[in-house]
Amino acid sequence: MNRLITCLSRLPSIGKRSAERIAFHLLKAPKKESGDLAKAIRDLKANTRQCSVCFNLTDDDPCAICSDPKRDSDQVLVVEQPHDVASIESVGLYRGLYHVLMGRLAPLDGVGPDELTIEALIDRIKQKPVREVIIGTNPTFEGDGTALYLAKRLDQTPVLVSRLARGLPHGVDLELASKASLADALEGRRKI
Amino acid sequence: MNRLITCLSRLPSIGKRSAERIAFHLLKAPKKESGDLAKAIRDLKANTRQCSVCFNLTDDDPCAICSDPKRDSDQVLVVEQPHDVASIESVGLYRGLYHVLMGRLAPLDGVGPDELTIEALIDRIKQKPVREVIIGTNPTFEGDGTALYLAKRLDQTPVLVSRLARGLPHGVDLELASKASLADALEGRRKI
Repeated sequence: MNRLITCLSRLPSIGKRSAERIAFHLLKAPKKESGDLAKAIRDLKANTRQCSVCFNLTDDDPCAICSDPKRDSDQVLVVEQPHDVASIESVGLYRGLYHVLMGRLAPLDGVGPDELTIEALIDRIKQKPVREVIIGTNPTFEGDGTALYLAKRLDQTPVLVSRLARGLPHGVDLELASKASLADALEGRRKI
Repeated sequence: MNRLITCLSRLPSIGKRSAERIAFHLLKAPKKESGDLAKAIRDLKANTRQCSVCFNLTDDDPCAICSDPKRDSDQVLVVEQPHDVASIESVGLYRGLYHVLMGRLAPLDGVGPDELTIEALIDRIKQKPVREVIIGTNPTFEGDGTALYLAKRLDQTPVLVSRLARGLPHGVDLELASKASLADALEGRRKI
């Protein structure tokens, strides 16, 4: 019991009290419930690997998105992390494929192009040309640097390179938007 | 004393305790300090009016922005409220003029075009044509409706109509952006 509570309270957003409550819940729960949880945790590590095409985390290789014939294989959205794929998928609008960089360029932390999956992206596009590469790195200093580097690398290919729009966040009034967002909104204003 | 505390505690973000503290502070303060405050409050109402050109709140008519020869009179940024002018000015990038609608179209609340300064905007542009009207209504349902209505009304004029960009808020990681912002970012992606 104490071992479980210690393990649980190491997880993010679970404190000592929550850990105790979960442990007692599992103690009282039917054996199947606790068994399923234990198996799911064990399987997570045993079965999760990276897709050899897009580097997203997956049970199967290639992943469900890369091997879905209904997705538009002419678009590749480049993101930093696997959880970014989940964020975009939750919107339900994008029907193309992904490429996960597994990080961003961060020279100060010693993360250069070789630490990311940039070469694999270039190779992938050379082997199977696409119409558009959408750069979806984060709208941060390092995300911007990574986007610029990618755009430069893709400059020699005929692919259309675009980037996710930035500006006012939907539903947030101007007076609550940050100065940087207002600057982006002014700079990126669009003809209507 | 009690009358002052009651008046103060009616102000936003001032509770009973703060009101008491402010009242005692004024009691102990030199006569000049309390006199200046009283005068500033009285003058606020007496002197603040709307600019007859852009409808922003101002001491002088036309306002300091409309009468500044260094501003680019070829651009007009249309916003909902005077505080939106302050937000954009705080960024320090925009050098054109403004037009304050004094609200937004809200049919359910009975706010139609006649309640806003839309006719004045059309007249203003007819009398003194500009190159670009930038619509800076809020990125909300009603702000969108107002932007559409304005774009339609300006359709017959030769002016370029643009709108502030929306998308990912600067510095906010993809996983923390709202679904609506992600949708805007995808839809509004730009070639780089």
